[in-house]
Amino acid sequence: MSLLTVGSVAFDAIETPFGKTDKIIGGAGTYIALAAAFYNNDQKIVSVVGEDFPQEMLDQLKDRNVDLEGLQIKEGEKTFFWSGKYHNDMNSRDTLVTELNVLENFDPIIPESYQGVDYLMLGNLSPQVQSKVIERMVERPKLVAMDTMNFWMDIAMDDLKNTISEVDLLIINDEEARQLSGEYSLVKASKVIRAMGPRYLIIKKGEHGALLFHSSQVFFAPALPLEDVFDPTGAGDTFAGGFMGYVASTNDHSFANMKRAMIHGSALASFCCEKFGTERLMDINPEDLENRIEEFVSLANFEMVQTIS
Amino acid sequence: MSLLTVGSVAFDAIETPFGKTDKIIGGAGTYIALAAAFYNNDQKIVSVVGEDFPQEMLDQLKDRNVDLEGLQIKEGEKTFFWSGKYHNDMNSRDTLVTELNVLENFDPIIPESYQGVDYLMLGNLSPQVQSKVIERMVERPKLVAMDTMNFWMDIAMDDLKNTISEVDLLIINDEEARQLSGEYSLVKASKVIRAMGPRYLIIKKGEHGALLFHSSQVFFAPALPLEDVFDPTGAGDTFAGGFMGYVASTNDHSFANMKRAMIHGSALASFCCEKFGTERLMDINPEDLENRIEEFVSLANFEMVQTIS
Repeated sequence: MSLLTVGSVAFDAIETPFGKTDKIIGGAGTYIALAAAFYNNDQKIVSVVGEDFPQEMLDQLKDRNVDLEGLQIKEGEKTFFWSGKYHNDMNSRDTLVTELNVLENFDPIIPESYQGVDYLMLGNLSPQVQSKVIERMVERPKLVAMDTMNFWMDIAMDDLKNTISEVDLLIINDEEARQLSGEYSLVKASKVIRAMGPRYLIIKKGEHGALLFHSSQVFFAPALPLEDVFDPTGAGDTFAGGFMGYVASTNDHSFANMKRAMIHGSALASFCCEKFGTERLMDINPEDLENRIEEFVSLANFEMVQTIS
Repeated sequence: MSLLTVGSVAFDAIETPFGKTDKIIGGAGTYIALAAAFYNNDQKIVSVVGEDFPQEMLDQLKDRNVDLEGLQIKEGEKTFFWSGKYHNDMNSRDTLVTELNVLENFDPIIPESYQGVDYLMLGNLSPQVQSKVIERMVERPKLVAMDTMNFWMDIAMDDLKNTISEVDLLIINDEEARQLSGEYSLVKASKVIRAMGPRYLIIKKGEHGALLFHSSQVFFAPALPLEDVFDPTGAGDTFAGGFMGYVASTNDHSFANMKRAMIHGSALASFCCEKFGTERLMDINPEDLENRIEEFVSLANFEMVQTIS
């Protein structure tokens, strides 16, 4: 089934305790599309880049069957650029530079050929842009998912809550869930947030895994314990892309299938952390992924054959 | 099979954001024995209390088939007392008072009838006392497990490393694992620590679950997401007691069975956090526990029926 991703395609410059990069390819839309491409052969993207964006990367996306009709290339303008530096614990980071460039006046135009898409993943963008995409879909996709970040909670909470009320699945991290709900307990936070609209909620806890909430059900997917987290940039987007790619390719958003999607998203996110930027994600093949999934099965699954004596 | 627990039986006074207690029953040995009692009918304890310790609690342990022959009652002396205050995040705490009392010169005498015990759980005590217990066992138990804490790493690292070299399973938390190994990554820490002796290592991560390492295998047991963590005191000991109680009652320390033991330990620990001290643990019945285990099964288990398309 088809999956439409809306999200930034961008440049990043990253510094971690392991080293630093020059301008490399980044952006939520990029990570989501690259991850979803492991599952889905009918992928579309709505995004915007400047004329400085390398054709090679666009070719790489095309090679992975990502339809680029909805990717606007703005002549004479520059691609969105973000630069950040991670602290030693790799759990927190400082933003050094944010140049919005083409994102400043981004109008998410949906090509006619994209109408009728089955699944929609809204990467982190301004809530107004995210809502505009939902409005412009003539037919409601089977599942509309969105990511966001604390930045929008700080400057546009009302708009954000409005957008959240329009989606089926919200994917955020634990810190964002606490800020959005005003609750420290993630169980309480999940109730407050789902009362805002989304039937499904995923709370990502970085190296501590991710929780999926729906109705009275809750599922926990662990993160793979890694020797080194080299660069966590894009891991959350990669998780979301793997999740939605899996759901779209299986055309099944039952809770049982979403559990599998959580494991697939976690597996791809674990690869993402192993090298800078998209490097590892572009390097692995389906067999690597299947082996990693097997690692998750042995990490998390157990059989309760014996009862209490 | 029989399980011998060596650990403090004590008084605690606890303050959390939810309230504060007067002197209540606590101690690692108490929590371990109460938790293991859900599985094991052949439990022995080596510990020491003062004459101020209430007979009712000793009766409660006896009612749960805990053999108290090895519990020394010191006339004219006072029971070990600890008082602490939790911070708002419930992950960190300050010790307000520590009165060693009877623990100061504790000599862990093993009654003759305890010899030949199948499993041994050494709760947090000075490493010298823990080593003395191992020395005094005429026959080596099938599995010797120990807990410890950063306090001993600060003041008696050499003794501690010596004791660690003598056990099969070390159970510590993430902070302790990092301090003991000098490695931030828990995967790296697990290698360093297992090179010190223990074939098995459990790293407890509080609300983020627990990891079991053995050879090239790793298993992760999640913590149950709770609405409120009321009082985490004793949760780690309860986990250890549930784990060792399950292993002893099934007489099986294969990795597959240890996975189940991790889930049982986590289930009991989740109860422990719901009220002050041992209150909840003394209140639940086997049916409550079975239902909680079921919650863990739905929380953590998934079936990978579909392969990548």
